[in-house]
Amino acid sequence: MLHGGEQAMAGYRPRHFSLEVRGAVAVVTLDRPERKNPLTFDSYAELRDFFRSLAYAEDIHTVVIQGAGGNFCSGGDVHDIIGPLTRLDMPSLLAFTRMTGDLVKAMRACPQPIIAAVDGVCAGAGAILAMASDMRLGTARSKTAFLFARVGLAGCDMGACAVLPRLIGQGRASELLYSGRSMGGEEGERWGFFNRLCEPEALQDDACALASSLAQGPMFAHAMTKRMLQQEWNMAIEQAIESEAQAQAICMATNDFHRAYHAFVAKQRPTFEGN
Amino acid sequence: MLHGGEQAMAGYRPRHFSLEVRGAVAVVTLDRPERKNPLTFDSYAELRDFFRSLAYAEDIHTVVIQGAGGNFCSGGDVHDIIGPLTRLDMPSLLAFTRMTGDLVKAMRACPQPIIAAVDGVCAGAGAILAMASDMRLGTARSKTAFLFARVGLAGCDMGACAVLPRLIGQGRASELLYSGRSMGGEEGERWGFFNRLCEPEALQDDACALASSLAQGPMFAHAMTKRMLQQEWNMAIEQAIESEAQAQAICMATNDFHRAYHAFVAKQRPTFEGN
Amino acid sequence: MLHGGEQAMAGYRPRHFSLEVRGAVAVVTLDRPERKNPLTFDSYAELRDFFRSLAYAEDIHTVVIQGAGGNFCSGGDVHDIIGPLTRLDMPSLLAFTRMTGDLVKAMRACPQPIIAAVDGVCAGAGAILAMASDMRLGTARSKTAFLFARVGLAGCDMGACAVLPRLIGQGRASELLYSGRSMGGEEGERWGFFNRLCEPEALQDDACALASSLAQGPMFAHAMTKRMLQQEWNMAIEQAIESEAQAQAICMATNDFHRAYHAFVAKQRPTFEGN
Repeated sequence: MLHGGEQAMAGYRPRHFSLEVRGAVAVVTLDRPERKNPLTFDSYAELRDFFRSLAYAEDIHTVVIQGAGGNFCSGGDVHDIIGPLTRLDMPSLLAFTRMTGDLVKAMRACPQPIIAAVDGVCAGAGAILAMASDMRLGTARSKTAFLFARVGLAGCDMGACAVLPRLIGQGRASELLYSGRSMGGEEGERWGFFNRLCEPEALQDDACALASSLAQGPMFAHAMTKRMLQQEWNMAIEQAIESEAQAQAICMATNDFHRAYHAFVAKQRPTFEGN
Repeated sequence: MLHGGEQAMAGYRPRHFSLEVRGAVAVVTLDRPERKNPLTFDSYAELRDFFRSLAYAEDIHTVVIQGAGGNFCSGGDVHDIIGPLTRLDMPSLLAFTRMTGDLVKAMRACPQPIIAAVDGVCAGAGAILAMASDMRLGTARSKTAFLFARVGLAGCDMGACAVLPRLIGQGRASELLYSGRSMGGEEGERWGFFNRLCEPEALQDDACALASSLAQGPMFAHAMTKRMLQQEWNMAIEQAIESEAQAQAICMATNDFHRAYHAFVAKQRPTFEGN
Repeated sequence: MLHGGEQAMAGYRPRHFSLEVRGAVAVVTLDRPERKNPLTFDSYAELRDFFRSLAYAEDIHTVVIQGAGGNFCSGGDVHDIIGPLTRLDMPSLLAFTRMTGDLVKAMRACPQPIIAAVDGVCAGAGAILAMASDMRLGTARSKTAFLFARVGLAGCDMGACAVLPRLIGQGRASELLYSGRSMGGEEGERWGFFNRLCEPEALQDDACALASSLAQGPMFAHAMTKRMLQQEWNMAIEQAIESEAQAQAICMATNDFHRAYHAFVAKQRPTFEGN
């Protein structure tokens, strides 16, 4: 299919995180386990560019993001990020917060559903990466902390005041953002932050199994679902219904829809091709 | 009370579903149990027209929608709807998705609170009918599936990407819409999709009891509650508060409000008349 | 710090509720326990003015609102408020609903996080006060009722149709607003209305301990969190992320952020000063 700009991610070699492509699933691993996988200026920027490039990567259908060594991500590195930030002028501070926000925008804008696999420490910007994913698998021992208040900052970081309330409710989100306290795994599942909890040793496999299952689905339609979840965020219901009428009519004109119908009639399982 | 356009629903005879009027409660039954009550082009259109006409039906205070034979609704019929859709051109596809969206718009716009009584299969457009109701009673054995992805379509059907996240949270809604998997009854209650679970044999009676209880309430005020829940969907809090100040001032000028006060002073139960 | 308009609340003497200032925590007590702490025209207005003046009260970091005698608040007094309302003309009714709405606006606009400590009866406007707080601690025996329908009014009172669905989900909120029934304490915790349940005899201390803990946090940043939770209520995600980039860049220019960094490096606990 020709439309300009295609590229394959299979050959992509990131410098600041690990990437493994398993079939149509891209597995992103934050990989500095000795420091619980903190983010740096470089890894922020590279993640942003990676998620942006996914828009053109037809070989990738879904993404798993995880951390190495039993922790997800400890957030912005105190020495590599927090220290330097205290010495920046205002335009540079805004350039930084816009860059981190651009990472979340890129995660929400890429067409592939993203599954965060969260074990151990998931703090600060790490909690944001989990929040910005489409789905989240956790472990009972995971500790997710939107700890910005603990370092003198506001809870409004990278979209947290908008997104977290829609995941777990306004009251629970308020408490986490004001207090900076950790949300435990069971609490997170009960509140809807995690879609389910897994055993730590099974977490990666479970996340990849879910990603692989979705990757066999209709990718054009999945991308439309993701786009519309984003698009209808603050629409009136009437507008949302008209927008969905248009979006679904487009999907009904795809071959994947026809394939599903013919497979059903033939009592077979459909094979989707994303067109 | 004269305002033009009144009509009574008690004499309404639908062709593609069953309607029973019990006091001020309209009980809509999807009634093709041998196929688990699928929808057809005709039943979509008739349901849309029925909910539209409820705006003028002063004899109906609340609505129960249910399915016959232990299932709620299996969605758009594969042979009667899916097959024909694969052969339509784009204007016809859009006409179809707009018609189905108009059914949801009509359910949200009619002044009567709608209670879905969900047992057994509740799939596709059936899940949408439950979602578009004001309240939902379920059973432990109910299976609610937003299964659009399984037929090659997107989750953005008839408002699902806007409404489902507000019912059960954005993360849980995302999983259901991408995967198309069934949500079980207990899960649905825990997540807030169902207001409560009932025994299958008691479901219809429980739904009618709730509907009957609400039907004895202040119908003018109930209609205002429904309208404002819709109206404030994407307002800023400040605008919502001003809108509610106006809406509630109108309700304070009704006789029902005066009746409630005088009944309270007389230590009696108020009788509301909807004016 | 000079910016005009500062005032201390420590010397404030309300006439229609009790106020105790403990350190930087203002404890507001609705204090007519023999009638379960109803609101009157006077107490509404005084609460509105109190919360408005908090914007300039630098000595107050957080607020606890509670009721005396084992109940939170029984709402608008039947004799002092409901009766007179039945005799008002429309401009006067609207003036009343706008005044009550202004109380909620003032609670949402003041920079201090507000914690409601809810025991016993929490009804009507009392339920709204709890809802309009940032966080809620409850007890198992608390009964929270948005009972407007029971007095012939609509559920759209003081922002309830906008705020309650974001706290507990649209379906659960709909049921409470249509039926006017009480939500029990355990139900309220499970649904996210209460952040947690406390023993009745420990409720006040627990609420003050939480308030005191937050009061030691970065108040400038806390105020920004509160403002942005309000501000992003109905923004698109992309706009919310840009707004947070600006708001957090401002917080990164505060001394509190620098203090936190230096305390971390020195392995000390930071002392925040709100600047």
